[in-house]
Amino acid sequence: MDERIREHAETLVDWSARVEAGDDVVVRVGEGAHDLAVAVAEALGERGANPVTVYAADELDRAYLRAHDGGFDEDPDHELALYENADSVLSLGAERNTAATADIPADRSQAHARAREGVREARLDTDWVSTLHPTRALAQGAGMSYEAYREFVYDATLRDWESLAAEMGQLKEILDDGSEVRIVNDGTDLTLFVEGRTAVNSAASVVYDSHNLPSGEVFTAPDDTAGVVTFDVPMTVRGRPVRDARLTLKDGVVVDWEAAEGEDVLAEVIETDGGSRRLGELGVGMNRGIDRPTGRILFDEKMAGTVHLALGRAYDACLPDGESGNDSAVHVDLITEMGEGSRLEVDGEVVQRDGRFRWEDGFAE
Amino acid sequence: MDERIREHAETLVDWSARVEAGDDVVVRVGEGAHDLAVAVAEALGERGANPVTVYAADELDRAYLRAHDGGFDEDPDHELALYENADSVLSLGAERNTAATADIPADRSQAHARAREGVREARLDTDWVSTLHPTRALAQGAGMSYEAYREFVYDATLRDWESLAAEMGQLKEILDDGSEVRIVNDGTDLTLFVEGRTAVNSAASVVYDSHNLPSGEVFTAPDDTAGVVTFDVPMTVRGRPVRDARLTLKDGVVVDWEAAEGEDVLAEVIETDGGSRRLGELGVGMNRGIDRPTGRILFDEKMAGTVHLALGRAYDACLPDGESGNDSAVHVDLITEMGEGSRLEVDGEVVQRDGRFRWEDGFAE
Repeated sequence: MDERIREHAETLVDWSARVEAGDDVVVRVGEGAHDLAVAVAEALGERGANPVTVYAADELDRAYLRAHDGGFDEDPDHELALYENADSVLSLGAERNTAATADIPADRSQAHARAREGVREARLDTDWVSTLHPTRALAQGAGMSYEAYREFVYDATLRDWESLAAEMGQLKEILDDGSEVRIVNDGTDLTLFVEGRTAVNSAASVVYDSHNLPSGEVFTAPDDTAGVVTFDVPMTVRGRPVRDARLTLKDGVVVDWEAAEGEDVLAEVIETDGGSRRLGELGVGMNRGIDRPTGRILFDEKMAGTVHLALGRAYDACLPDGESGNDSAVHVDLITEMGEGSRLEVDGEVVQRDGRFRWEDGFAE
Repeated sequence: MDERIREHAETLVDWSARVEAGDDVVVRVGEGAHDLAVAVAEALGERGANPVTVYAADELDRAYLRAHDGGFDEDPDHELALYENADSVLSLGAERNTAATADIPADRSQAHARAREGVREARLDTDWVSTLHPTRALAQGAGMSYEAYREFVYDATLRDWESLAAEMGQLKEILDDGSEVRIVNDGTDLTLFVEGRTAVNSAASVVYDSHNLPSGEVFTAPDDTAGVVTFDVPMTVRGRPVRDARLTLKDGVVVDWEAAEGEDVLAEVIETDGGSRRLGELGVGMNRGIDRPTGRILFDEKMAGTVHLALGRAYDACLPDGESGNDSAVHVDLITEMGEGSRLEVDGEVVQRDGRFRWEDGFAE
């Protein structure tokens, strides 16, 4: 076995999910994740945990959903009981064809998801973690060779998470104590308020309330944004490319927008509802293992030297108890690069300049 | 998709497991069973059932069991709850390497099985059915090309089960009403008593208390056997070949034995305990789709024109209420061919001659 697969499994089980002896674990195995599943089984055996392994195959979902008449039973007993009795759920994504579910009618999938709301909640009530095993299909989706994509995934995933968590803790503290955030780069000059909000140190571990491996971002829920922002990192939104989207905000609301490509899908998102005209998330990517966008938000938004903002729904974890943040049916992340000439300021103090934080070598005073 | 795979799935879901709308189904998918699992998902979608798909992979079991210290938790809550809440369990066997678990220490597997006794009982309490999807590894084990092996499996599996069930019902009736069974062929002249015992019409459906697809045998629990029997169908017992085993029985007990090959493993089985010196099962193979032994008991014992006898444990289903049959830690099937010159008699009447039943064309009066 490739030693990186074993290391991935150990990171997932120990750092991310904190599995202990006696834990009842559900492992969800994507179609192409067999090798990682073997390594996870080994790690769970060593720790004395109890796995039930679910085969989470897109082609099975497609066959089932297309054949069904759409009148789904609500939260089947056996499925609900499985997740309600689990301590952790480890999802090993590994598509063999990223378009495998392209011909499921959208209303069928939505009806099925609605009928499984209780199962979903039971799953989110566990120490759940989602990760990704590199496949040829995912490499193809990223426009990379298989070998290069595997290097990319393991660079992103096999970090020194403890030291990254400590570094991200510094930014979290600054954002928690701060009030006004200003983002400046080529095409962007935006101010956002974060007074009273709590940033999440998303360090790829359930103890940080972070459920993705890899992770590596600090995010919070902004308010009252104003200015202009250009998203120069290429994105795929609802299956369509969006390039150089540019938003103008006033009093927290998007008042104007344009894009070099995909302006129609951008308009679709913005015009969804009241909350989709506001920003629900400000996130700062800090994972230096991610050196390029690959069209997958799990990786893209964590890329070091980028900032992302989401149109739509805010995360409750960032809000004071009892306060509800921006609400919307959508949450669409868009990313801007913090390169030469960029600045991230909090209350007038420069925290990051030219993509380097003030605690990093090479930071220009 | 190969239309035979779809037909296999429909036979499994409709004829064997009798799945209905609203049923909570666990589908256990072996490593090589993806294609059959897709067809089963489609069939379950059409019927409006609710599947949870478990990945039953030998390589995961091996990794887990070898890594574990052997102190297994008893019946983990989430696993037990899954099966306790299931209506049916469909197991799709499909090894990619029939030796995948060869290096798991036997005591580790046994300790794990003991700790999962409650899970096993919960599974057996459902409408469970085991079937097999042809893989290259299974073809190799049978000494056949992949293409020929697939034909073999589908010939065995895609039968007209309704008419076979009716035919087997005739033999069941004869055995249920009868007292003395006599088996005669080249090397065999054996009498067995079946008075008061109930034969199982194993027609590959839960409504017949038959849990294998394919099936196609009628079996009962004999008593007080006497005579000689030669098992000329090659078998693999505990991984070792056994050829032309010959038993001599008196007053129901094996008093002498020999074999052209594997006499040592035969002795091992016979000398296990008190019950292993007696025959717990008399079975008559009636599946005409199975035309050769392939080293897998699921198929071999159902082969038309054969009779099998098992050393050891009897099945409760064959015994009158409250009566316990032959008890033993082992149940080892051995098969004898009913070719030219053979006779199966019940109470002196010939039921089968030269391998043909009296209701078949070509039966010699």
